[in-house]
Amino acid sequence: MAIKNRIGNLYSLTSFGESHGPAIGGVIDGMPAGVTIDMEQLKREMARRRPGQGGMTSARNELDEVEILSGIMDGVTLGTPIGFIIRNRDQHPEDYDHLKNVFRPSHADFTYHAKYGIRDHRGGGRASARETAARVVAGALAKQVLDKMGITIAGEAVMSELSSNDSAGDTMGGILKCVIRGVPPGIGETVFGKLSAQLAEAMMSIPAAKGFEIGLGFDFVNHRGSEVLDKWTFKDGKITTQTNFSGGIQGGISNGNDICFSVAFKPVATLMQPVEGIDNEGNPVTIEPRGRHDAYVVPRAVPVVEAMAAIVTLDNVLIGRASRL
Amino acid sequence: MAIKNRIGNLYSLTSFGESHGPAIGGVIDGMPAGVTIDMEQLKREMARRRPGQGGMTSARNELDEVEILSGIMDGVTLGTPIGFIIRNRDQHPEDYDHLKNVFRPSHADFTYHAKYGIRDHRGGGRASARETAARVVAGALAKQVLDKMGITIAGEAVMSELSSNDSAGDTMGGILKCVIRGVPPGIGETVFGKLSAQLAEAMMSIPAAKGFEIGLGFDFVNHRGSEVLDKWTFKDGKITTQTNFSGGIQGGISNGNDICFSVAFKPVATLMQPVEGIDNEGNPVTIEPRGRHDAYVVPRAVPVVEAMAAIVTLDNVLIGRASRL
Amino acid sequence: MAIKNRIGNLYSLTSFGESHGPAIGGVIDGMPAGVTIDMEQLKREMARRRPGQGGMTSARNELDEVEILSGIMDGVTLGTPIGFIIRNRDQHPEDYDHLKNVFRPSHADFTYHAKYGIRDHRGGGRASARETAARVVAGALAKQVLDKMGITIAGEAVMSELSSNDSAGDTMGGILKCVIRGVPPGIGETVFGKLSAQLAEAMMSIPAAKGFEIGLGFDFVNHRGSEVLDKWTFKDGKITTQTNFSGGIQGGISNGNDICFSVAFKPVATLMQPVEGIDNEGNPVTIEPRGRHDAYVVPRAVPVVEAMAAIVTLDNVLIGRASRL
Amino acid sequence: MAIKNRIGNLYSLTSFGESHGPAIGGVIDGMPAGVTIDMEQLKREMARRRPGQGGMTSARNELDEVEILSGIMDGVTLGTPIGFIIRNRDQHPEDYDHLKNVFRPSHADFTYHAKYGIRDHRGGGRASARETAARVVAGALAKQVLDKMGITIAGEAVMSELSSNDSAGDTMGGILKCVIRGVPPGIGETVFGKLSAQLAEAMMSIPAAKGFEIGLGFDFVNHRGSEVLDKWTFKDGKITTQTNFSGGIQGGISNGNDICFSVAFKPVATLMQPVEGIDNEGNPVTIEPRGRHDAYVVPRAVPVVEAMAAIVTLDNVLIGRASRL
Repeated sequence: MAIKNRIGNLYSLTSFGESHGPAIGGVIDGMPAGVTIDMEQLKREMARRRPGQGGMTSARNELDEVEILSGIMDGVTLGTPIGFIIRNRDQHPEDYDHLKNVFRPSHADFTYHAKYGIRDHRGGGRASARETAARVVAGALAKQVLDKMGITIAGEAVMSELSSNDSAGDTMGGILKCVIRGVPPGIGETVFGKLSAQLAEAMMSIPAAKGFEIGLGFDFVNHRGSEVLDKWTFKDGKITTQTNFSGGIQGGISNGNDICFSVAFKPVATLMQPVEGIDNEGNPVTIEPRGRHDAYVVPRAVPVVEAMAAIVTLDNVLIGRASRL
Repeated sequence: MAIKNRIGNLYSLTSFGESHGPAIGGVIDGMPAGVTIDMEQLKREMARRRPGQGGMTSARNELDEVEILSGIMDGVTLGTPIGFIIRNRDQHPEDYDHLKNVFRPSHADFTYHAKYGIRDHRGGGRASARETAARVVAGALAKQVLDKMGITIAGEAVMSELSSNDSAGDTMGGILKCVIRGVPPGIGETVFGKLSAQLAEAMMSIPAAKGFEIGLGFDFVNHRGSEVLDKWTFKDGKITTQTNFSGGIQGGISNGNDICFSVAFKPVATLMQPVEGIDNEGNPVTIEPRGRHDAYVVPRAVPVVEAMAAIVTLDNVLIGRASRL
Repeated sequence: MAIKNRIGNLYSLTSFGESHGPAIGGVIDGMPAGVTIDMEQLKREMARRRPGQGGMTSARNELDEVEILSGIMDGVTLGTPIGFIIRNRDQHPEDYDHLKNVFRPSHADFTYHAKYGIRDHRGGGRASARETAARVVAGALAKQVLDKMGITIAGEAVMSELSSNDSAGDTMGGILKCVIRGVPPGIGETVFGKLSAQLAEAMMSIPAAKGFEIGLGFDFVNHRGSEVLDKWTFKDGKITTQTNFSGGIQGGISNGNDICFSVAFKPVATLMQPVEGIDNEGNPVTIEPRGRHDAYVVPRAVPVVEAMAAIVTLDNVLIGRASRL
Repeated sequence: MAIKNRIGNLYSLTSFGESHGPAIGGVIDGMPAGVTIDMEQLKREMARRRPGQGGMTSARNELDEVEILSGIMDGVTLGTPIGFIIRNRDQHPEDYDHLKNVFRPSHADFTYHAKYGIRDHRGGGRASARETAARVVAGALAKQVLDKMGITIAGEAVMSELSSNDSAGDTMGGILKCVIRGVPPGIGETVFGKLSAQLAEAMMSIPAAKGFEIGLGFDFVNHRGSEVLDKWTFKDGKITTQTNFSGGIQGGISNGNDICFSVAFKPVATLMQPVEGIDNEGNPVTIEPRGRHDAYVVPRAVPVVEAMAAIVTLDNVLIGRASRL
């Protein structure tokens, strides 16, 4: 479940923060009590998301130091909401002065202006991928709880066939595959609460996400029904399947297999080449590149996709406790 | 926003009903008051969904007569909730007697059993596509309101490359494309409430849906950023784009262009061939085909996809009224 | 949690229906699976609500036959939503013809008109107490589940000091006390989710409810803090209190004691005397009494108050399962 | 609508923070864009809430400096979520060392322990009235928006008949009356979304609140129906009432009159006298008073009650924009 800036029902994140405002952050509500929190794991997850990873990406230096403000005492969760902030540092707002009244192509500049009549033009404001840092915090903590339940999440960026050419200032998209392992059968809800639907919403809410598929996904159209049945078998005293075309979810509910899905990301629209924009009176404006931007965002999205998977999975595990008398 | 059997925030549908229970139905909450309802349009939408359309599908004869129980007086909406039911007729529950303790492959039999410890084994119970009839009711009424706002929705099944071979008892999946036209710029919410994410959730909640993409979708991975920018232009006094790779949504909010997305459906798992199932003690069971089932479901899904698009769009149009002072 | 026509989070009721429409009803979502339902208990609860109880009330004859349409198979809950309807019978819509454009004093006629620009003038439409029948259905089923958990609910109408005088056509309000017994410590949520707040909302949503208090309630103002402390004691191996000024809830969470609250109901505004109304152009209109109306509604509200208490309590018991790891 | 630590649907506050943790704060989601914010008004509202007002109360010195972290740029709201924090200062956690394993009478110590198995014992943790500071922030901003719509809110503490005697270390409760003026007719929702029910929930969620009534409230029981009808009249071209026994709300929806309600607060349970507590093994413990505590909390609750009224009213004004086509 998501409405505006909140996702989740029993385990939820309500986030806030513009790219160039004082800080970003959020409130995690519904973290079960009694969980010993590993702050080092949180730092590692945040580090995975940071710009400047490897040679392929280079960008703003975001230290992403998370300050936890509530909900944890002596390293153990209280069950009360966990508020946290991440100060925005290493900002260069002047990089955006020239964009105050300009709408960049394939950005959210125009749509935010159309919706609100006002926008924070610096760095994309609320539309910036900067807000994903808050998701990684909530996801990291969710992962710790899931880990204690034997559930793990692993994402993997699939290299595009296009050659890397960031010296030319262009960008590339990519596909990110993710596996949630160890989810017991029976997690997820019926009809509108299908686990596959909730995962789709969570993934498609990530900036630049443009496609989602589970199991065989779009490839199902190339097969007859008889070819892609996941036949049942009995192994180690448990009912399981011989194949996993379904991607671990049937009728919206987990069947105990690995939950496998993919997310398609479009190339980031901020290029290191001049592009044509438009001002709010309709006049064309040439936008010269400034600042520092990623050419290939997909590796940085891995911890974000994992975080969303963790939030949705933990939320559904908790909801699932109410399924039976 | 969806939780369990409810979707939508301000315009919502809460549905109920098993395939072989007394009836299916739902409650539509948040229908604006003062709308003159066209009952003939509702009947046409329901007819589009019925089995037995053309030569490609043949199945149970569902008359789908909708009985409206509240919320409309003298053909005009009151603003109060619209309750409705559709009696289940032409049922052959005996077709399922042999499945009482059997889990069919790639169905929700096992997952519902794992979740609830109990299930309605007749016709798939709540997991059956029968529940989509309730979605079409809520979608049809939403379409009528959107139509008055100049917003239209049109879906189209794309033929699979596989030849039709339902005499062999096998099934095929397919892709369904849909366009929402006339949505003004500014509709949709930020971050977790992205219109693209809400559409993804709504579509992926449809039985057999296994993939969703918007704009270029998965094909984005084959293009550099510079190739797929939707450049701005000024036409007829309005800011619009020259191309529409984005699919009409940027930063989760509509930009005034056609909203274009695709949904991938897997082949229906109920074949007219014998298949191997398993009973709840792990013993293999051969399941002989009985009854009447669709070979190719995608044409019937068109009104369902349109209905979900209508529900999400109207909901967001209503929420959007609160964006500004 | 309540929004519009829905109450509850994990155990929820979404209701519909106008007084003189075809039917009222609702959808119960989140009923745990595996509960054996006692249909006789449901009938008894509905009978308690019906008009015409004892000499003090006389009114429309509502048979209130509940038709369950889903979610229960062979008398056991499936965990899927329970849809139900109650046909409106014994209606005399002609009793209201003269009120089509008239606003009665202290009714919802004017406010519905102001909100929607349209209203069902017959019998109060959606504002009629008729909708409480749907609440009793959801509450009755919730009571059955709670009963298996050792939780019981008992309400009691407190006689007004005013003498009964319905032959004079006037009406009286009253106070209704209710006790929820057997709730274990720890049920309810913090801050905005306080159990006392949720009960207040549920009770104040009942037609004619105008006040709510828990424990000593308004009488607290007449005591010093030292006089009304609920001191702890250790009894039968459990920590409990010697007194119960708190009414069983502290900090919004149950402490194991009886949860005791009161609801104040105003006199029903439909009198059996002529009253002055106004038409929608501002002209005064004398409204002659027609039909059959209750003089003293409070005894009929007992099963409604108990039903709301049951819905809130079961909802919170289910949410409570997610409090700890 | 409230669930756990969040209240509101379209205008919502999700809060966090323990009394003696690093900070309290919250996220306001749904603030309409384009509102010029008066930071001085916010400071004044926070100052009204602070301890140490007048001779009757004396307590911890809370500076309550609000740091806004997002959602406002150049003093104007962006429509994006407003995150804010208030650092906890002037804390004396050592005042609570002796209470680590002790449950104080009529506090939330035991209930939190029962629910979570763990609690922050310092100053009441999440149960402390400290969290109300976050409510005042959200309420202050809501008031600014309502003010532009001609809606004002004024609360007033009614003195108890008990004499002030804080030198004796005891405490007193009180009644707080509040008026919401200028709400146009038609605000509020039907059935479970009644404005009176939402106000009841919001008020009863305030620490120490034990009763709520609207209009004549509990006094209705002393009157016959004919005596308390709010008769309609036509004045200044508008339909309005001659009296206001209803308290401005009929059928859950505003009728244009002043919305008048009262909230009953119990005496604060933290006395400046020794009291008997119990430890978690059931042994009695005498608790000596330490620190600084309020004897009479009601005046400090005035801005909190007003804040809750503002949050609920603005939320419903925004929801109301979706009532009609």
